[in-house]
Amino acid sequence: MRLLLYRSDGNTAPWVRDFQALLPALDVVVWDQASPCPPCDYALVWGPPAALLAQLAGVKAIFVAGAGVDALLKFGDALPSVPIVRLGDAGMGVQMAEYVLHAVLRYFRRFDDYESQARDGVWAPLALPSKSDFAIGVMGTGALGAQVLAALAPFGFPLRGWSRRAKTIDGVAMYAGSAQLGDFLAASRVLVCMLPLTPATHHLLDRAMLEQLPRGAYVINVARGALLAEPDLLTLIRSGHLAGATLDVFRNEPLPAPHPFWGEPRIAITPHIAALTVRADSVRQIVGKIAALERGEAIADVVDRTLGY
Amino acid sequence: MRLLLYRSDGNTAPWVRDFQALLPALDVVVWDQASPCPPCDYALVWGPPAALLAQLAGVKAIFVAGAGVDALLKFGDALPSVPIVRLGDAGMGVQMAEYVLHAVLRYFRRFDDYESQARDGVWAPLALPSKSDFAIGVMGTGALGAQVLAALAPFGFPLRGWSRRAKTIDGVAMYAGSAQLGDFLAASRVLVCMLPLTPATHHLLDRAMLEQLPRGAYVINVARGALLAEPDLLTLIRSGHLAGATLDVFRNEPLPAPHPFWGEPRIAITPHIAALTVRADSVRQIVGKIAALERGEAIADVVDRTLGY
Repeated sequence: MRLLLYRSDGNTAPWVRDFQALLPALDVVVWDQASPCPPCDYALVWGPPAALLAQLAGVKAIFVAGAGVDALLKFGDALPSVPIVRLGDAGMGVQMAEYVLHAVLRYFRRFDDYESQARDGVWAPLALPSKSDFAIGVMGTGALGAQVLAALAPFGFPLRGWSRRAKTIDGVAMYAGSAQLGDFLAASRVLVCMLPLTPATHHLLDRAMLEQLPRGAYVINVARGALLAEPDLLTLIRSGHLAGATLDVFRNEPLPAPHPFWGEPRIAITPHIAALTVRADSVRQIVGKIAALERGEAIADVVDRTLGY
Repeated sequence: MRLLLYRSDGNTAPWVRDFQALLPALDVVVWDQASPCPPCDYALVWGPPAALLAQLAGVKAIFVAGAGVDALLKFGDALPSVPIVRLGDAGMGVQMAEYVLHAVLRYFRRFDDYESQARDGVWAPLALPSKSDFAIGVMGTGALGAQVLAALAPFGFPLRGWSRRAKTIDGVAMYAGSAQLGDFLAASRVLVCMLPLTPATHHLLDRAMLEQLPRGAYVINVARGALLAEPDLLTLIRSGHLAGATLDVFRNEPLPAPHPFWGEPRIAITPHIAALTVRADSVRQIVGKIAALERGEAIADVVDRTLGY
């Protein structure tokens, strides 16, 4: 059995090593863009270029080494008609929880303001918002969103969730679809964006949407940069409607040198590190899914191409 | 029944109002340092001056509006021989958990480094420590320490606790007494100080102790400033043995203007706000304890004067 491996970061050697340790019968072929691959049963890709498509004929499934599949689905009908499989948790849920909880606590307890006071040598306790006025709204309540909500739960913030289709999560006020988006936004003091990037969510968070957040709201984006209209966010921060943002993802990555976000102290910038794929977890998961597919069983995390995730 | 109320911050009116709402039969007398009080059944004090002692003759118990009682116990034998009662949780546990978890996540995920990179316009993912190398050691495992450990538990850090006497906490490697202090320190990558300030703990964290922490360790102090030898901490941060500190309490508060901590970027300073007494919770707790004492029942949180907490 043969697996085609491609990673745009070139970091393939440890993946090959991990697959060989776990499933020695698997022949892992790294595609180097130069020469064609021998016929492969499966493919595992991260950041695929268009030229990869020609190598995918004949594979039984394409695995994506991440939770988001927008970088593959953008090829649309040029993709073979085989299952596309994203990673399930693979160690990302706890990292997302750490990232979001840190940002939420930082805003709620005003640690950013204390840090700025300390730089000026100022000792001054600050008034805190009441927790009941500090609702956290998570957009996108899949496996990762649900873990973020669970991590927030012990701290007593009012929790809200928004998803495409109606669902229920214990202890979370749930909103669904475009009809309830306004109500969801209107009382979310912190908006946490964890949506997949699809044609339906591209630039979803534009000025018209962000203006519906309460005055003094914060935005945390750990999903994809293109979900957010960057100039609109900046406008609303500078106008004072939004109090700040913590952004891990951007329209263009790395964030270009002359981008206005760099100079804005109310925007915290991290370089797409909120949740890194844990290689060991990922390899174990993919090996398990290949075995299930070979037995003819159904597997989790198969992408719905119509929905885009 | 009459309660003497004294607060060094002068913020007594909302306390009087809350007591009256909950227990109208209680006559709350605010002592203003000028004139003597009428005879009182109980006293509730915060930051008491020596002159208060003369007013305490005849009270049946002295309540302290905080978790630490060092500011009262320093009067020693000049205090009447009645129970001294500290606050139990009174809303402080969750605040301590928020404060410590924010600082731990900040260090573990290197958000402080990312913030400094962003100020310089640098986009560069950083290597993270392995979680198994990032043990959190909590010194002082009373009601508040136990809540901090419980809040850390879901994130998978190895947890360690140190207390005066041996005890067990599920999922926490426990160390007790001076005999095991060295072992406790040697593998605590983050040291969280939550000890009561007593003659036995005064300057406990001096150079000899802090040097036993592993290289690159962090110190978080949310208890009392005098537990820590401040010049020793600074020496070890500047030598590189310690990677940083997050301090909410100081030998002298407010932290004086020319103090070297202000200029040290590896020390995060907050103005004694890690856990503020929640007034509503405190008043409810004290009213309940007064009722129990009047019925001749035992109450929790009575201070052991020999131990000092």
